[in-house]
Amino acid sequence: MRIGVLTGGGDCPGLNAVIRSVVRTATTQYGSSVIGFRDGWRGLLENRTTPLDVAAVDGLLTRGGTTLGSARVAPEKLHAGLDDMKTVLARHGVDVLIPIGGEGTLTAAHLLSEVGVPVVGIPKTIDNDIDCTDLTFGFDTAVSVATEMIDRLHTTAESHQRVLLVEVMGRHAGWIALHAGLAAGAHLTLVPEEPFDVAEVAKIVGDRFARGDSHVIGVVAEGASPLPGTMLVRDGGVDEYGHKRFTGVAQQLGEELERRTGKEVRTTVLGHVQRGGTPTSFDRVLATRFGLHATVAAHDGKVGQMVALRGTEIELVPLADAVARLKTVTPTRLAETLAFTG
Amino acid sequence: MRIGVLTGGGDCPGLNAVIRSVVRTATTQYGSSVIGFRDGWRGLLENRTTPLDVAAVDGLLTRGGTTLGSARVAPEKLHAGLDDMKTVLARHGVDVLIPIGGEGTLTAAHLLSEVGVPVVGIPKTIDNDIDCTDLTFGFDTAVSVATEMIDRLHTTAESHQRVLLVEVMGRHAGWIALHAGLAAGAHLTLVPEEPFDVAEVAKIVGDRFARGDSHVIGVVAEGASPLPGTMLVRDGGVDEYGHKRFTGVAQQLGEELERRTGKEVRTTVLGHVQRGGTPTSFDRVLATRFGLHATVAAHDGKVGQMVALRGTEIELVPLADAVARLKTVTPTRLAETLAFTG
Amino acid sequence: MRIGVLTGGGDCPGLNAVIRSVVRTATTQYGSSVIGFRDGWRGLLENRTTPLDVAAVDGLLTRGGTTLGSARVAPEKLHAGLDDMKTVLARHGVDVLIPIGGEGTLTAAHLLSEVGVPVVGIPKTIDNDIDCTDLTFGFDTAVSVATEMIDRLHTTAESHQRVLLVEVMGRHAGWIALHAGLAAGAHLTLVPEEPFDVAEVAKIVGDRFARGDSHVIGVVAEGASPLPGTMLVRDGGVDEYGHKRFTGVAQQLGEELERRTGKEVRTTVLGHVQRGGTPTSFDRVLATRFGLHATVAAHDGKVGQMVALRGTEIELVPLADAVARLKTVTPTRLAETLAFTG
Amino acid sequence: MRIGVLTGGGDCPGLNAVIRSVVRTATTQYGSSVIGFRDGWRGLLENRTTPLDVAAVDGLLTRGGTTLGSARVAPEKLHAGLDDMKTVLARHGVDVLIPIGGEGTLTAAHLLSEVGVPVVGIPKTIDNDIDCTDLTFGFDTAVSVATEMIDRLHTTAESHQRVLLVEVMGRHAGWIALHAGLAAGAHLTLVPEEPFDVAEVAKIVGDRFARGDSHVIGVVAEGASPLPGTMLVRDGGVDEYGHKRFTGVAQQLGEELERRTGKEVRTTVLGHVQRGGTPTSFDRVLATRFGLHATVAAHDGKVGQMVALRGTEIELVPLADAVARLKTVTPTRLAETLAFTG
Repeated sequence: MRIGVLTGGGDCPGLNAVIRSVVRTATTQYGSSVIGFRDGWRGLLENRTTPLDVAAVDGLLTRGGTTLGSARVAPEKLHAGLDDMKTVLARHGVDVLIPIGGEGTLTAAHLLSEVGVPVVGIPKTIDNDIDCTDLTFGFDTAVSVATEMIDRLHTTAESHQRVLLVEVMGRHAGWIALHAGLAAGAHLTLVPEEPFDVAEVAKIVGDRFARGDSHVIGVVAEGASPLPGTMLVRDGGVDEYGHKRFTGVAQQLGEELERRTGKEVRTTVLGHVQRGGTPTSFDRVLATRFGLHATVAAHDGKVGQMVALRGTEIELVPLADAVARLKTVTPTRLAETLAFTG
Repeated sequence: MRIGVLTGGGDCPGLNAVIRSVVRTATTQYGSSVIGFRDGWRGLLENRTTPLDVAAVDGLLTRGGTTLGSARVAPEKLHAGLDDMKTVLARHGVDVLIPIGGEGTLTAAHLLSEVGVPVVGIPKTIDNDIDCTDLTFGFDTAVSVATEMIDRLHTTAESHQRVLLVEVMGRHAGWIALHAGLAAGAHLTLVPEEPFDVAEVAKIVGDRFARGDSHVIGVVAEGASPLPGTMLVRDGGVDEYGHKRFTGVAQQLGEELERRTGKEVRTTVLGHVQRGGTPTSFDRVLATRFGLHATVAAHDGKVGQMVALRGTEIELVPLADAVARLKTVTPTRLAETLAFTG
Repeated sequence: MRIGVLTGGGDCPGLNAVIRSVVRTATTQYGSSVIGFRDGWRGLLENRTTPLDVAAVDGLLTRGGTTLGSARVAPEKLHAGLDDMKTVLARHGVDVLIPIGGEGTLTAAHLLSEVGVPVVGIPKTIDNDIDCTDLTFGFDTAVSVATEMIDRLHTTAESHQRVLLVEVMGRHAGWIALHAGLAAGAHLTLVPEEPFDVAEVAKIVGDRFARGDSHVIGVVAEGASPLPGTMLVRDGGVDEYGHKRFTGVAQQLGEELERRTGKEVRTTVLGHVQRGGTPTSFDRVLATRFGLHATVAAHDGKVGQMVALRGTEIELVPLADAVARLKTVTPTRLAETLAFTG
Repeated sequence: MRIGVLTGGGDCPGLNAVIRSVVRTATTQYGSSVIGFRDGWRGLLENRTTPLDVAAVDGLLTRGGTTLGSARVAPEKLHAGLDDMKTVLARHGVDVLIPIGGEGTLTAAHLLSEVGVPVVGIPKTIDNDIDCTDLTFGFDTAVSVATEMIDRLHTTAESHQRVLLVEVMGRHAGWIALHAGLAAGAHLTLVPEEPFDVAEVAKIVGDRFARGDSHVIGVVAEGASPLPGTMLVRDGGVDEYGHKRFTGVAQQLGEELERRTGKEVRTTVLGHVQRGGTPTSFDRVLATRFGLHATVAAHDGKVGQMVALRGTEIELVPLADAVARLKTVTPTRLAETLAFTG
């Protein structure tokens, strides 16, 4: 059998571990071969490939990023290119395609599947917002980096009795903010799922100092936004999925809090450090198991599906279900922070 | 309401995070009070306590170990002391006891529950061998430390074309070895669940060098043992649960491999570094959620149970079920290493 | 003897280790006592103190920040308050004052010394810009955090063929940028000591991609500035020492590079994570030795001086010499990057 | 010009960074070429080489170990092979040889230099025992790993009121033990330079518990030995330099302490994790600068020397001076631990 692999969307710690796992499983367990398409769907559209054998994936387990490269392609281009992609796959004798990616990539995978291409998807998102799987690889690494950084900020905030805001990734889902906030003992966690009232945030900050607390650490998801009318946030246009964006929310909230509370506020925007570098052991295991089970599914003819973590097992779920909606932070999970914030 | 807390058995990263979570949840969400018993069951038997309020748990989230202390108590002492423990609990007006511990502690918790003490257990084991929960806190930290160390061993093994064996914790269950082996790209993983044939291990080592591979990394659970008759292992007596023990398995396997393959072998026994230090972000979140949900269960009168991770949710399972058997590595999970070893 | 301690200026990993070292040395080796002044010079001006004994410094070795608190005080306030400070010191029977801090703090220490107060200074700056000492504690931690973050950025930059700019601390001296750039393999290092030509920077970026290189990592000191007329940089006013400041240089350079090269540029501003958290082992040793030797000097009557690292030894240098000028990156040291950049 | 490079002795974090630095400096700054000899002096004796250009050293900065391989060769073999080595060097047109290694390698370099081969040595030892240089790369990484591990042991020791002994590297010099002990707050540091009295060690342990301290952390250099007659230590034969060795000193001291104090003692032997893995930022900078300055010296005809760190500068010292004696821990430096132990 011949397997095709590509990585789509933003890069993520664990992508290389998945690629290695697919290649090692296919070649050592089934005697199959693997071909990689470069720079995500673009490589498939433009017929740019790279052979992948065991030697090619040596050392990839611990390396962040994707050796195949990645690029974002507009959804309409993908729609228009379905036939071209089928042709390229056929030319290379690909029996099953394993695309690794997030919402956009899995939606494209679903489309290809609908037009008859055997596909097994592998979910990837540091934001953890893909539905039907308990977790995705990359998320634990992102939370881990954010937590380590927030741990560092506690001591500097304490020493100067400051407010420190950390902006973490998560445009539509606040999972990184929620988990890093819980893990690092943040006093304030703002997520996209629940618009914040800037007056209430200022009150929490003021109350802490009034009670004699030494400092305030706030974790702010980049997609968090104020209740309409309470604070101005710079318009960031519309993203590739048509969602409205804001930019610099932590910075602007910081300025607002300085004004309202009279306290010094410092802001750190973690940015791309959350998505780079070697994956945590958790993500390496999950990525390896995803690659393994996707390859087994490909050989078992179980296509049109996505691998998913359910409890301790890797299972298969229909691609259609997986892309039906984003998995966002529920009010119940958000309420779990109540005992630890304020 | 008044909650009692104790930590039993070996220490584990996340214990302090659980204690903090119980105290913060009980006091800030319910207005309840919390009392801690020192050094595990011994503190309850000997009436040694410490008050626990929000100030007392400040800073505990990130600290390894247990501020309450821990000690192992012989099962027969616990059996004999049930009435004494009830008396002490009554004297302090404890409404619900939350014991945090492994197999031994949860068994004792179950006994207490059987004689009418309201108990909510919290599972703790770096070995991940407690049944009925997907994972326990401390395990991710142990795997993470082991993985980081094995990452380091790769480069030194390569430079000298050596075999490096790493002995990790896991007396009855090979979960740490399995996960650290997968995460760090070990070429060999030996677990207690499947006795190894030393001739086969020597063959794997020899074959790798014969193929031109630069080095061999083997992960050996401390409880791994050779097939009877294939290698001598030092008898380590019988542990507190009556299980037979061996000691120094990695060291002895190393000597045997040097003899059989003519290759240089070095052995590292990670020991207590796996159970010390600050917990990973994963374990901090899990420990915090366990503490929160156990405290909620205590206030809801849902006793005689243990909190457990099931998928992404924290649920309750009867203590009787949780202590019925150890959770060991299944042949299916072990088979997942096949594509990555040898 | 009675020692007074205070920590001035921005906080820095290792401050707590110095405080612990002074206290342990004074009490266990000399039977002396130690008193701390809170929030830097302000505590001395306002007579706010805290007793410091061995129990009070337990656990401080590994903790970032300063348990004494710190605050910046305007130089003119310090000048005006010299007599008040002498009075407070006398009231507490302080024989020698050990102020720990950077340029500002050591200048104030020198002033106090000039008016007859026995003072032994300890240099502190994550920027490493204090003269007459090979290194200061905090610098290694800052470089280490920056390096770890840049390591992470390499893989994400590669995967998307991007330019990633990292803004690190260093307003007047580029030591953090120089060392983190060397340590993390940056392709571009911009420091305050040598204004950059934006056209030249754009050329380096363009040339790398033209040669087929996958990405560009640039390290930019916050105090780096463009050659006049080549790029607009936001005016950041004047700092407490009267130096002109710019803000957001990396962000603005990034926008400029996108425009000029057509490549995607992402910017990360590391901010306060560089000055928080547990110190590296290097900084813990240096901080401990500084505290020890300053306390010995105090007891030996060697005052009006500052401890300094010279090779492997801790020596004493006159405060007057130490504050005469900032230690900046020399052209020779900058030239060492030539073989590794571009 | 043509430069030859080899790495001798045990591997060490930073070796690859040196190789990269030599190659980049020689090729980009001088247009020279570089050839590597495989597995240390053995490669030079047996004429096994590998070409080294900029592409070959890509990615080496952050990788532990040595891509050239290393092996220990008996001194008499080196003596006997001097002529063969000269022939091999001539055959490859090598103008200057840059051997990177410890005591053994630099002694061999000195021999070659004496018979007319232009040599520039680069000192390498994680033990930091090479004379005439403030520090060697690899040492900071070893101390850093040991410190991180000892940090972890504190919490587990505390929780169970145990003694934890950590055996670190250092057969003849106690620098790693000294620095890791200072950095991690050990209560006891044993080095080869000062034989210990086991009764005194037992007293220190007993006194701590008698005073109510929760635990004891001891750092033991592998080459530490008891005063004759106070404790039995297993004979480990004689090493390659003719020095007598003991083995398992920490383990045996631990058993002795359990017997004498009645306290639980656990021992961790860190082993090869101290010499593997990615170098710290400090070691990356030092290794890079050593490689750079050695290459400059080679091109300047300054041979028969070794690069050395002196303060903040890289200088040259005669090989003869560098190998005249080992640099061991002085009584003065050892006395610096007094305020922090016991």
